[in-house]
Amino acid sequence: MFSRVAIIGLGLIGGSMGLALRKAKAAQQVVGYDLGRGVSDRARKIGAIEQHYHSLADTVRGAELVILATPVGAMKALLQNLSDLLSPGAVVTDVASTKVQVISWAEEFLPSSVSFVGGHPMSGKELSGVEAADAELFSNYIYCLTPTARTRPTAVSKVSSMVESLGARVRFLEPAEHDGQVAGVSHLPFIASAALVNTAAESASWGDASLLAANGFRDISRLAAGNPIMYRDICLTNSEAIVRWIDGYIATLRDMREHIATHDRDIEETFAQAQHVRLKWQEEQSIKE
Amino acid sequence: MFSRVAIIGLGLIGGSMGLALRKAKAAQQVVGYDLGRGVSDRARKIGAIEQHYHSLADTVRGAELVILATPVGAMKALLQNLSDLLSPGAVVTDVASTKVQVISWAEEFLPSSVSFVGGHPMSGKELSGVEAADAELFSNYIYCLTPTARTRPTAVSKVSSMVESLGARVRFLEPAEHDGQVAGVSHLPFIASAALVNTAAESASWGDASLLAANGFRDISRLAAGNPIMYRDICLTNSEAIVRWIDGYIATLRDMREHIATHDRDIEETFAQAQHVRLKWQEEQSIKE
Repeated sequence: MFSRVAIIGLGLIGGSMGLALRKAKAAQQVVGYDLGRGVSDRARKIGAIEQHYHSLADTVRGAELVILATPVGAMKALLQNLSDLLSPGAVVTDVASTKVQVISWAEEFLPSSVSFVGGHPMSGKELSGVEAADAELFSNYIYCLTPTARTRPTAVSKVSSMVESLGARVRFLEPAEHDGQVAGVSHLPFIASAALVNTAAESASWGDASLLAANGFRDISRLAAGNPIMYRDICLTNSEAIVRWIDGYIATLRDMREHIATHDRDIEETFAQAQHVRLKWQEEQSIKE
Repeated sequence: MFSRVAIIGLGLIGGSMGLALRKAKAAQQVVGYDLGRGVSDRARKIGAIEQHYHSLADTVRGAELVILATPVGAMKALLQNLSDLLSPGAVVTDVASTKVQVISWAEEFLPSSVSFVGGHPMSGKELSGVEAADAELFSNYIYCLTPTARTRPTAVSKVSSMVESLGARVRFLEPAEHDGQVAGVSHLPFIASAALVNTAAESASWGDASLLAANGFRDISRLAAGNPIMYRDICLTNSEAIVRWIDGYIATLRDMREHIATHDRDIEETFAQAQHVRLKWQEEQSIKE
């Protein structure tokens, strides 16, 4: 059990972590901080935190575990600001979607008296904000941890216990391995969705065609509604891996295009492969849904 | 009110049309035909048709309206087989996703004593088969009709009444215009989804990465589970428009790739455009959901 846990950023993820940690009685005290007007108050009212502060210094003072639950775009400045404020021995973890860049900032700015363990919960919701927070958000989902050779084992063990108390399943990965895999299964899907929406909307017939768009368009375009700033920051911090995946995606599309342009009936096998992979993945997911 | 309506193909669409037409009392008799073992019997049991036959000839004999609700891949042979069997004055319509090719087959094979009006209901479900049939499937959805200069006005008017009795909203389009627009909002989304799944699955890290795939991958890959034969036939009959859309999609992806590779913060505007279009579309859809 932790003595004091501080959560910086009380959106969907931070708020849900607070609810889950308090529900699991994983800490004597869970406190929080958020720059958004009224956000901390709402987090306290729904029980995600017991107390909130108006300064980072007060929030992290005496905290054994500090959880950075801000978008990745805020992470650099946050780590810089925290460098003088953390109590010696504190363990810091984050929830950002990209890890290599965040870890390099943590190594650059945090003092050697504290430990940093990169983290990334693989769950989410379409809704955002503390109002959508849910103690079960992480339940049975994978939660990546990306310790490096420099990370203290005791810090890894503390963050692992925290993750388990959320009901999530810890998965250890190298930071670069994490970023490459997540670029494929999370960042590329967003790019594919946004590119499809823009392609459709930039066509001269969009006004009419949009009226014909039905369930297929609905499914493929859902991700495109994601926060542009969050995705910009993901692209800025995981550019290389995302570009590699886009190149692979374009190559696959070109290949399909050639089959279709030449009226090749064997395109059926390509589609059957995709169907098989998707159905198999769906089946393996079923414990989560 | 129609005297006798014959539905060829009693899957999700054909079965739902039967249920809806009978519920609306739009015909004195609704009969059907399906090659699938036991399908016609199940269609009769759920009330989608009153009677079924074991031959096309018996099914369409005396039918005032014949609805072809088979996949587009079966349409050519079906129109050939029907050419000698239809009663003079009969009106034939179809529900296939592509119209130019189907209309050219209809013009080639059907006798001048019958009329053909191309149709395409813009609704669907993830489930298929007569078991998933639903009298409300078309309710408030758009239903495209693509008469040509050669189509008799009385035939167009009959098919329009049928569509209205389903609770759907008629939208008239030129066949080529239909195929171009549907390629963008329905066929391209499938291609984008299948290509994404294959790109991910062909990477060396898929075994591990698939464990990290969460809601984003779920949304983008849903369409890839579609029937490979149906999509093969859509590609075979709408190749030109689909290829044009894939080219536009690849161009958009290349453009995004360049912004991401050069760490351009303005990628935010591209993402914001996609978000805006998707949210606006979603809002306009809300009457349907």
